[in-house]
Amino acid sequence: MPTEDNPKIGPPAPAGTVGSRMEPGYAAVRVGWTVAESLEHIRKFGVPSESLDVVCVLDENRRLLDALPLSEVVLADPAKKIEDLMDREYVSIGVAEDQEKAIRKMRQHRLSALPVVDSSGVLVGVVTAGDAFRIAEEETTEDFHKKAAITPLEKGYNESSVWTLYRKRIVWLSLLGVAGFLSAGVIAAFEETIAAMVILASFIPVLIDSGGNTGAQSATLVIRALAVGDLNLKQWLKVIRRELVMGVILGLSLGAVLFLMGVLWRGGPHVGLVVFMAMTCIVLLANLVGGLLPFILIRLKLDPAVAGSPVITTIVDASGLLIFFLIARWYFRI
Amino acid sequence: MPTEDNPKIGPPAPAGTVGSRMEPGYAAVRVGWTVAESLEHIRKFGVPSESLDVVCVLDENRRLLDALPLSEVVLADPAKKIEDLMDREYVSIGVAEDQEKAIRKMRQHRLSALPVVDSSGVLVGVVTAGDAFRIAEEETTEDFHKKAAITPLEKGYNESSVWTLYRKRIVWLSLLGVAGFLSAGVIAAFEETIAAMVILASFIPVLIDSGGNTGAQSATLVIRALAVGDLNLKQWLKVIRRELVMGVILGLSLGAVLFLMGVLWRGGPHVGLVVFMAMTCIVLLANLVGGLLPFILIRLKLDPAVAGSPVITTIVDASGLLIFFLIARWYFRI
Repeated sequence: MPTEDNPKIGPPAPAGTVGSRMEPGYAAVRVGWTVAESLEHIRKFGVPSESLDVVCVLDENRRLLDALPLSEVVLADPAKKIEDLMDREYVSIGVAEDQEKAIRKMRQHRLSALPVVDSSGVLVGVVTAGDAFRIAEEETTEDFHKKAAITPLEKGYNESSVWTLYRKRIVWLSLLGVAGFLSAGVIAAFEETIAAMVILASFIPVLIDSGGNTGAQSATLVIRALAVGDLNLKQWLKVIRRELVMGVILGLSLGAVLFLMGVLWRGGPHVGLVVFMAMTCIVLLANLVGGLLPFILIRLKLDPAVAGSPVITTIVDASGLLIFFLIARWYFRI
Repeated sequence: MPTEDNPKIGPPAPAGTVGSRMEPGYAAVRVGWTVAESLEHIRKFGVPSESLDVVCVLDENRRLLDALPLSEVVLADPAKKIEDLMDREYVSIGVAEDQEKAIRKMRQHRLSALPVVDSSGVLVGVVTAGDAFRIAEEETTEDFHKKAAITPLEKGYNESSVWTLYRKRIVWLSLLGVAGFLSAGVIAAFEETIAAMVILASFIPVLIDSGGNTGAQSATLVIRALAVGDLNLKQWLKVIRRELVMGVILGLSLGAVLFLMGVLWRGGPHVGLVVFMAMTCIVLLANLVGGLLPFILIRLKLDPAVAGSPVITTIVDASGLLIFFLIARWYFRI
């Protein structure tokens, strides 16, 4: 019977890597053993842990040759050799990889445990289903927070101090607030237009909110589709085409709502027509910005998850207001 | 040796329930057996599947008595009785429960497989880690979409037709657009104030965007904390207290930015003071609305995930504008 497979204790792995989240224990067997010998070895030397859900077949240098689900080994004829169960088609992950990659692999291949190897292919640990659930939960929380313009928290909402939460929130809020002066500048530039027709001011909120909302919808759809692998980075042209068509029909629909309101509630058909045209253009623009921004952010090596509605809103606001007032000035010649 | 444990085939389970996502196969053993007998039974009758990761101990009526990780059974002395391994402390889930509950349990107890029982406690299947990863991914996508005011898609972005996506997006957009007329109404009511001081109009976007952004931050922090169990429903008073303090300091900070801009860029100290007061009140209000809305939605048996920034923005806009113009009218006596 071989000696125990002791995991080596090294320096702690950097946070966010697979190494920082794996279990150091594992069930390791050798190619030449029978199934009965392998199970006997695991029984003798294994430490109770979900990391035993995968049986790792190693060569004499402790390099990973194959990974078999424990259930497969249990189901096999005890007299069979481990060699006979092997197909050398297995999934493993490098110890220095991003922890997010581990859950993507486990999800894709429906694994309950994933072997972790170092740069020379030597087995160093196992990511269990329990580890994966935790990682997935943390990553989802981070993405939600980023999309709402919150710098990711280290601890939960309940454990974080007011001061910590303040710091995580104020940075983005101030940036977005300062960026909001672009919109203020646009309105200031059209003060004469507004003074001549104060009625225009009442359409500002609904126009910029609709732009922000459609843009955030497109961005969310694209970010999530990229994250789950439903879209890949080469499909940006397809996304443009789709968001163009979608922008036109959404813009016309929302424009129609605004036209009716403009006509019935105030101003009559002329104001109705101006806000209809403005809404159509703004929604189209917002749709394109929302659909493309995730690709641009990835291209710039930034995290696409920050393309949440606060960022989209701020981008679309100033340009949307410019469109609105240019149309109004041109139409009413004021 | 006992006979095979055949899963019964019944009518298909309703979508979204645990029953619709479980694997029908499982590893079932009886209390009186030894570990060796149990493993032998699994080897003979088990079908290769990750659902074997948990060994279910049943009574003579096929009711679940305990659930042991397969690794624990493999590690045990073969001569031992299954009875000796049992502590009757196990986690299972009802077949009619919400699929989201299954992943919450598996995450909490770090399980790679979860037994599913019917209303009389009879074992009917197992949710595997692979199932759980899929469910978690779908639920996360749904939550992201809801927060961006998109009715959840049945298929991915790439497979959905433009017409389907249009329907999923236009409903919320129209509702929010129509609700936006509340803000239009507020501005219309203050047209004389604006006509007297057009400069006020240029602060509309930055005031309502900051309100929307802070509200969305609070809502996201609270929704996510509730979802991962970091907050419970009884802690709403604590959330109010926190968001009150946070609202005051965030409001004062952002108000200060706006004051500086008001003074330096346009209008001088009087306009600066008015926008400072308005910003402080709006951010405080938005923080309270964002922090409380998830609790209110849950109380109304609605999904808190819809409290995303579009909904918050629409609520905060009209009230924020009202605050702004009331302060301006009072201060400038116009």
